[in-house]
Amino acid sequence: MANNLLEGKKGIIFGALNDQSIAWKVAEKCYQQGGRFVLSNAPIAMRMGEINKLAEVTESPVVAADVTSSEDVKNLFEKATAHFGGGIDFILHSIGMSLNVRKNKHYTEIDYGFNQKTLDISAMSFHRVIRTAWDMDAMNEWGSIVGLTYIAAQRVFPDYNEMADAKALLESIARSFGYHYGKKRKVRINTISQSPTRTTAGSGIKGFDGFVTYADKMSPLGNASAEDCANYCVLMFSQLSKMVTMQNLFHDGGYSNTGVSQQIMEMVENQL
Amino acid sequence: MANNLLEGKKGIIFGALNDQSIAWKVAEKCYQQGGRFVLSNAPIAMRMGEINKLAEVTESPVVAADVTSSEDVKNLFEKATAHFGGGIDFILHSIGMSLNVRKNKHYTEIDYGFNQKTLDISAMSFHRVIRTAWDMDAMNEWGSIVGLTYIAAQRVFPDYNEMADAKALLESIARSFGYHYGKKRKVRINTISQSPTRTTAGSGIKGFDGFVTYADKMSPLGNASAEDCANYCVLMFSQLSKMVTMQNLFHDGGYSNTGVSQQIMEMVENQL
Amino acid sequence: MANNLLEGKKGIIFGALNDQSIAWKVAEKCYQQGGRFVLSNAPIAMRMGEINKLAEVTESPVVAADVTSSEDVKNLFEKATAHFGGGIDFILHSIGMSLNVRKNKHYTEIDYGFNQKTLDISAMSFHRVIRTAWDMDAMNEWGSIVGLTYIAAQRVFPDYNEMADAKALLESIARSFGYHYGKKRKVRINTISQSPTRTTAGSGIKGFDGFVTYADKMSPLGNASAEDCANYCVLMFSQLSKMVTMQNLFHDGGYSNTGVSQQIMEMVENQL
Amino acid sequence: MANNLLEGKKGIIFGALNDQSIAWKVAEKCYQQGGRFVLSNAPIAMRMGEINKLAEVTESPVVAADVTSSEDVKNLFEKATAHFGGGIDFILHSIGMSLNVRKNKHYTEIDYGFNQKTLDISAMSFHRVIRTAWDMDAMNEWGSIVGLTYIAAQRVFPDYNEMADAKALLESIARSFGYHYGKKRKVRINTISQSPTRTTAGSGIKGFDGFVTYADKMSPLGNASAEDCANYCVLMFSQLSKMVTMQNLFHDGGYSNTGVSQQIMEMVENQL
Repeated sequence: MANNLLEGKKGIIFGALNDQSIAWKVAEKCYQQGGRFVLSNAPIAMRMGEINKLAEVTESPVVAADVTSSEDVKNLFEKATAHFGGGIDFILHSIGMSLNVRKNKHYTEIDYGFNQKTLDISAMSFHRVIRTAWDMDAMNEWGSIVGLTYIAAQRVFPDYNEMADAKALLESIARSFGYHYGKKRKVRINTISQSPTRTTAGSGIKGFDGFVTYADKMSPLGNASAEDCANYCVLMFSQLSKMVTMQNLFHDGGYSNTGVSQQIMEMVENQL
Repeated sequence: MANNLLEGKKGIIFGALNDQSIAWKVAEKCYQQGGRFVLSNAPIAMRMGEINKLAEVTESPVVAADVTSSEDVKNLFEKATAHFGGGIDFILHSIGMSLNVRKNKHYTEIDYGFNQKTLDISAMSFHRVIRTAWDMDAMNEWGSIVGLTYIAAQRVFPDYNEMADAKALLESIARSFGYHYGKKRKVRINTISQSPTRTTAGSGIKGFDGFVTYADKMSPLGNASAEDCANYCVLMFSQLSKMVTMQNLFHDGGYSNTGVSQQIMEMVENQL
Repeated sequence: MANNLLEGKKGIIFGALNDQSIAWKVAEKCYQQGGRFVLSNAPIAMRMGEINKLAEVTESPVVAADVTSSEDVKNLFEKATAHFGGGIDFILHSIGMSLNVRKNKHYTEIDYGFNQKTLDISAMSFHRVIRTAWDMDAMNEWGSIVGLTYIAAQRVFPDYNEMADAKALLESIARSFGYHYGKKRKVRINTISQSPTRTTAGSGIKGFDGFVTYADKMSPLGNASAEDCANYCVLMFSQLSKMVTMQNLFHDGGYSNTGVSQQIMEMVENQL
Repeated sequence: MANNLLEGKKGIIFGALNDQSIAWKVAEKCYQQGGRFVLSNAPIAMRMGEINKLAEVTESPVVAADVTSSEDVKNLFEKATAHFGGGIDFILHSIGMSLNVRKNKHYTEIDYGFNQKTLDISAMSFHRVIRTAWDMDAMNEWGSIVGLTYIAAQRVFPDYNEMADAKALLESIARSFGYHYGKKRKVRINTISQSPTRTTAGSGIKGFDGFVTYADKMSPLGNASAEDCANYCVLMFSQLSKMVTMQNLFHDGGYSNTGVSQQIMEMVENQL
């Protein structure tokens, strides 16, 4: 079923921890479509995860990088461009971590030091990655950069906590940098707002399982899977979407524009 | 509690059927705030309703008008400007009717003749009213026109049927005409997107009661009442909001930006 | 450069008038990607246009249909499903016509009879097409329906006139019907909001050429061409976007999220 | 012209530097409407500004507070509630500062240490203020909190730099905290997205004057002034808007929903 959509394209994929990760699926799909890439993750995540298995299957170098370190990111881009002997065509940013969620701090009682780290890891890292590419002129024309996000940036899901604010910041960076990089080098930057997905990261959120079911029953097509999301990322990396930039693209089975589904209304009515 | 926000202001209020109507509450609040106005409704609605009681309390003339008839609307504006001896400062459009809903036609099987009437009564009437004022130069500078709408224009609530499309059309008219009338005469045009409200109109929608409860439990402040909505209309008619135009203003206790509330999640989880 | 994205897929493409038409380009791209389709247009448009050339190149039957006639649309679907010996996988709705624009009626002085026709041709026809498919169960699972629209549905472009309202109605129909068809048959419905494009339809709008240049200078990537748009339609028809529904997708080189570009600011400043 | 909209209400107003400041106008209008309040600003801003004049005219205590210091903010709330002998009804957050803009660092080359401070001062301070009130239970029921923002949070204005991202973060905090505070104590939180305004803060942005003129010519009603904005803040503090929460309210003469105005198109066409 490969369509060679990424034939000859080179990329960097951030955030593949294990085979539950969306980034893992993106790597598999990009590979099937002819893309080649460097895998990257935080040093600690690499120790915990199984990224080497993925690297083997997809013939990818693995370069550890702490995305809060400009040096690390620069080193990664140097390795990647050296490996490919040229510029980068696509980047996936699938990185998010909330210290306050991990420490069970409610949104109304967050620690501001933790919050600063959350914003740095989950959002400003997107700026840092893009800007490093910009400084090194490492992206090819019409290159495509995608960050993964969640609809909590638009509407409140109480347990999503400070990650909602981090995602709003991330989406703003996509627009802001998308303008400049579009003008300068025709590079485009978008975010994909994905259905809640049972990944290792997602499972840290309180009540996540119930919530996934809720979203599934609310969405006319049901929740989009990690694999579906990976396919959509491939489309956004391909030249066929080359004029799409600075957008937040909902990939959610219709959730975002559904006020309420028949099924959810019935469940609620049963409780009245 | 009157603040004289509409002291000396003259208006036209469409859509007061009985004391459940939002327009009825708007009339009461405008009167308390010093506004004077003409009441109007469709001839048939006037026979069914109790508008004369309201007219008495608020010292208002009543002029019947079928808003799908340009002649009727023109006659109304002539009567109103003659009555006030001058221009109009505020208009409330609280008019909506779906023939397909009445006839229990599902959205997927609407009658297109009925639909054409629904759009004409519920949306194009807004254009007709504004345009009649425009043709007669009947609005004073900084005058304010408000149409009532519902969030189904943005997200699907299955039972709301074709009225969702009618409201999307209404909101577009507010923007389109708001541009022209703002430029020409500083007249401003907005829509207020109100919580589901138990009115005679609302009660025609299948499963409406359960839905009102659902929205109430979803909204951090609960549903906004008809009386609350009337107060907000007063603010939008007042000079203190004079630079707000072409907006769709959610008046809904926070519903529109709530993804899911704790309460609703618990009700759903109890059913899993 | 074909990726076989539509291998084995069958469709209906509305609105190819001549080789300037976006629908024409969509037909060419779908054909290259392995898709087969029936071409349809209004009887009068078919006499004016050159659709037979396109039909020949793409091996497509041509079936005239007035989209304001439920009978015509039904006949078209019967012919198409008979031709393919089975269901439909994709539909392009690229249909719009404003009688008031043609007659040079300003938005503030539109003829309501013309307006009713504009809404019927440009927006309600989308409902009629989809509903005919629904009634006949003519769409295959995961089928994809796309309507072309324009950002005037969200923001005012004065010369776009009543078409802004028609597009708002069209986009609402995509959401409303998208919910029902998604639930019932996993069919998805989206609109693509395209850069202003020099087509025969576009050229009817006053000041259109200047406006195209303006949009081009405002968009970080420049305006998207008809060909680019066709590629994006292919993506939305493909299985790789199967979880995207009820969305309005901006395909505009970043225009929609650009407040102002450096270039436009300079042009304005030169005039101050 | 006072309407006693804030009779008996107590507040805290952040950010009045001099009589160009929006916060200064808000203080004047609140005072006229019967509100009483404590004025606060950063220690350094207080030395530069003329806040004592305002304090005298409005009979307000002045309490210096660095909003990046939880201690300072706590001290301010203690002083304010002691002064009023009770809870707070309204808060204005009109605080923003970009170190990278001050240092002339382009968005593509921001210093991340500066950026962290920008986000802390301009956005996270909103969380800190609200959360301090929450911890001390210092807000009365139906209290109203407003933060000032700008449309750069939605669309790119290149010179607005990292402040765009800071405002996106601020608006997200309004939603996130608005949910929790609404549920707990009926406190509501909104942002007002104001026209570009010639204040001391605004004048730091490159090309600001030309931009103000551009926005003015784009907006059907022209730009909203600081005084207009102050009136709108009064409305949002009053009980008449009590069901509005978690919203971003455009107060901009129609700018946000105008694609292009006739005037701007003409200026552009003159340059082609």
